[in-house]
Amino acid sequence: MSRTSLPATLKLGFLGAGQLARMSALEAFRFGIQVAVFSDRTENEPVQFMTPYSTSGSFDSVDDMVEFAKGCDVITLENEFISSDILKEVRDKSGTPIYPSPETFALIENKLIEKQTFEDAGIPVTPYSLIKDELDLKDFGEEHGWPYLLKSSKGGYDGYGNETVKNLESAKEAFDNLGGNAGQDIIAEAFVDFTNELAVQVARNETGIAVYPCCETVQEDHICVAVLSPAPVDSHFQERAQELAVKAMEAIDAKGIIAFEFFLTEDGEILLNESAPRPHNSGHYTIEGAVASQFENHVRAVLDLPLGSTKLNKPAVAMINLLGTHKRPAETDHIKEALETENGHLHVYGKIDSKVGRKMAHYTLLGDNLEETYKTAMHVTRNIEI
Amino acid sequence: MSRTSLPATLKLGFLGAGQLARMSALEAFRFGIQVAVFSDRTENEPVQFMTPYSTSGSFDSVDDMVEFAKGCDVITLENEFISSDILKEVRDKSGTPIYPSPETFALIENKLIEKQTFEDAGIPVTPYSLIKDELDLKDFGEEHGWPYLLKSSKGGYDGYGNETVKNLESAKEAFDNLGGNAGQDIIAEAFVDFTNELAVQVARNETGIAVYPCCETVQEDHICVAVLSPAPVDSHFQERAQELAVKAMEAIDAKGIIAFEFFLTEDGEILLNESAPRPHNSGHYTIEGAVASQFENHVRAVLDLPLGSTKLNKPAVAMINLLGTHKRPAETDHIKEALETENGHLHVYGKIDSKVGRKMAHYTLLGDNLEETYKTAMHVTRNIEI
Repeated sequence: MSRTSLPATLKLGFLGAGQLARMSALEAFRFGIQVAVFSDRTENEPVQFMTPYSTSGSFDSVDDMVEFAKGCDVITLENEFISSDILKEVRDKSGTPIYPSPETFALIENKLIEKQTFEDAGIPVTPYSLIKDELDLKDFGEEHGWPYLLKSSKGGYDGYGNETVKNLESAKEAFDNLGGNAGQDIIAEAFVDFTNELAVQVARNETGIAVYPCCETVQEDHICVAVLSPAPVDSHFQERAQELAVKAMEAIDAKGIIAFEFFLTEDGEILLNESAPRPHNSGHYTIEGAVASQFENHVRAVLDLPLGSTKLNKPAVAMINLLGTHKRPAETDHIKEALETENGHLHVYGKIDSKVGRKMAHYTLLGDNLEETYKTAMHVTRNIEI
Repeated sequence: MSRTSLPATLKLGFLGAGQLARMSALEAFRFGIQVAVFSDRTENEPVQFMTPYSTSGSFDSVDDMVEFAKGCDVITLENEFISSDILKEVRDKSGTPIYPSPETFALIENKLIEKQTFEDAGIPVTPYSLIKDELDLKDFGEEHGWPYLLKSSKGGYDGYGNETVKNLESAKEAFDNLGGNAGQDIIAEAFVDFTNELAVQVARNETGIAVYPCCETVQEDHICVAVLSPAPVDSHFQERAQELAVKAMEAIDAKGIIAFEFFLTEDGEILLNESAPRPHNSGHYTIEGAVASQFENHVRAVLDLPLGSTKLNKPAVAMINLLGTHKRPAETDHIKEALETENGHLHVYGKIDSKVGRKMAHYTLLGDNLEETYKTAMHVTRNIEI
C-alpha cells in the first residue's frame, strides 16, 4: 500500500485554509505536490496566498465540497468543523479519499463518543458524564466536586465551547449558553489536579506508525502559550503518554496525523484529555525540532508515503506562540532579536488581520538545555507585537 | 537599515519561476510574506503552482516587468537571463527596489567584466582572454595549451554556452557556434588542473554578512551531480575559499545571496571560476544542512532582515541532484528507500515535464561522516527515475 511514485500532477486538497493547512502545504510543495484549498471564507485566508487552486464554499454544503474534491487526488482536514456524515458523503460522491477518514473522525468528533471510544480501548480519560438536565448538573458536582467543566460535545477548541462552573447556579447558566437547552449534547468533566499538560503527535498509515516525543504544553486561560520538548517530566511518564497515544491511534484506526493531549495528575496518572485529527499547535516545534515535522508526516501519511523520523534534532526545543497583541492589519513588529538568535526560527502565518489573542505566528528555539532554551525563547520574543 | 517589522501584505516578486524561486518562496511563506512571480512562460512553471499572483511576459520587455514590479515591495532574481540595463529600467520606472541590484549584476553578467572585476579586487581567477578572431584563438592555445574552453560572455550555465576546443580547427567552429562571428563577446579560458571544485554561498545586506561553509561540487559533463559539505579538503583551503568569497561579495557590493564557484588547483591555489547572483544548486544542501538555508538568507537579505546562522546542523551533508531520466510527464519513481532513510530529505521541484538530464529534484542526507553519508545518499537514490 506504500506509494513509491510522485507524479507531478498529484494534488492534495485541504478542507480549511488556516495556518495548519498552510504549514502542511509547505511540506507538500517540498515533495512537488500541488495544493488546492477549500475555505469557508472568500478571501485572505493564509493558504489562499499560496496556491492558484483556491475555492470557497460552505462547510455544510456537500455539493460545494464534492466539486472541489473531484479535482484532488486526496483530501485532508485542518479543523473539526465539518461533520463526519458530511465528510462521508463528500468522499462517496466525489470518489476522492479523505484522510483521516470520516470513520476515524466519527469516533472523536463528539466528545462523548471520543471518551467512550478511548475508555473502551483501556485508555484512562478524565472523569466525565453526559448531562441531560439540572439533576445531572447537581449530581456531577456532588460526585466530583465543584468547580468542574461543562463542554459542548462538538466544535470546541482553545477554550471556546467550554465553561468552568463553580456551583449549580453557574452550571445552569453555562448549560444554557452552550446550547444544552437547544438540543446540544453537553458533557461535564471533572477538574483534574494535574502537574503538567502533555501532548504527543502520532502519524500513521499502512506503511507504519511514527510517534513524536512527549512534549509539555504550557497553557494560560486555555490557550497554549508555549510548548517544551521533550516534556520536563520523568521519562517513564513520557513513555507512558507515547504508549497511550499509539493505543488511541489504533483505537480509532487513524490514517494521517493525530495529536493527543494528556494530563499528568498529581498522583502520577496519565489521562487522555483531547485528540485532534490534524496537525496541532503542540507539534509546531517539530518543524525544526524533529527530523521530519508533524506537517511533513501529515503529508506523508495521507499520501501513503513511508513516514519520516520523529527524532529531535537537538536535546531541547521550545516553541512560543505569538498571539495577536492588537486589533489591526497584521504586522509582526520588533522581530530583530528573535531573528538574530542562532537556532531561532520565526514562522508568521500570513493572516491579514490581527486580533488580540489570535494565533498569528510562532517562534521555535533549539538548544541543549530545556530551561535555558525556554528562557531565551521567551526573552527574545518578549517585545514582539502583532 | 534593518527591517524590524513584517506587514502581512509584504510582497516579494521573483523574476523567474523555476526551482530556485520556488525554494526561496517556501522561505518567504514561512515569514508570512506574499509571493508574486513573473515568468517568461505562460504556465506550468514550478512557482506558478504556489501563488495566485502569477504573471507572464517577456524578459526583454521593460513594460511587462514594470507592471509586475509595481505590485511588489521588493523584486529579486532567480536567473541571469535579464540584462542589467533592463533591470535598471524596470527598477527606475516601477520604483520597486531590485536585489541583487542591477549595478551588482552589471559587474558579473558579462564573463569578461566579471573576471576583470574580481581580478581588480585581488581575487585570483582562471587565466582568460577576450577573443576577437582566429589569431586570438591561436595565440591563447599557444600560451595556455590545448585544449581550452571557449565561453560566450553572456548567458551560459550548466555547460550551455561553453565549448571545449582541442585545436584551432575546433576553436574556429566553436567560436562561430557561440556567436563570435555574430558580435557576441567570446572569452577563452585556460583549462585548470584542479583537484576539487568548491563553492561558497554568501548572503549580505546592511545588517551584515553570512558565509556558508565551503562545499565541494561533484560535476559530470559540466552538470553538478552532487554536493558535499564541508568540502573534503584541508580546512585552510576551505577558509581561503570563504575569504575570497567575502572579498568578491564586497567587490560587487552585493545585497542578496551570491554563489561563488572555485577551483582548487593541483598547486594548492584557489581560483574563482564563476559567480551567480541568486541561490545556487551548490547550496541546496543548506535547506536541512544549515541552521538557516541559502533560500532563507536570500529572503532575509533582500528584505533587510538580520541574516540567519550558516552553521551546519550535522558534521556531514551530502546532496544528490536527481536529474531527469526520461522524456515524459514528470513522475518521481522508486522513492521508497530514500524516504525511509533517517535524516534523508527529498525535494521535488514540481516541474510538469521531465527531460533527460533536467534538474527535477534533489535529495539531502545528513550524517556524521562525509564519505559514508555520500555513499548512503548515492545508494538510496540509485533507483530513482524521473
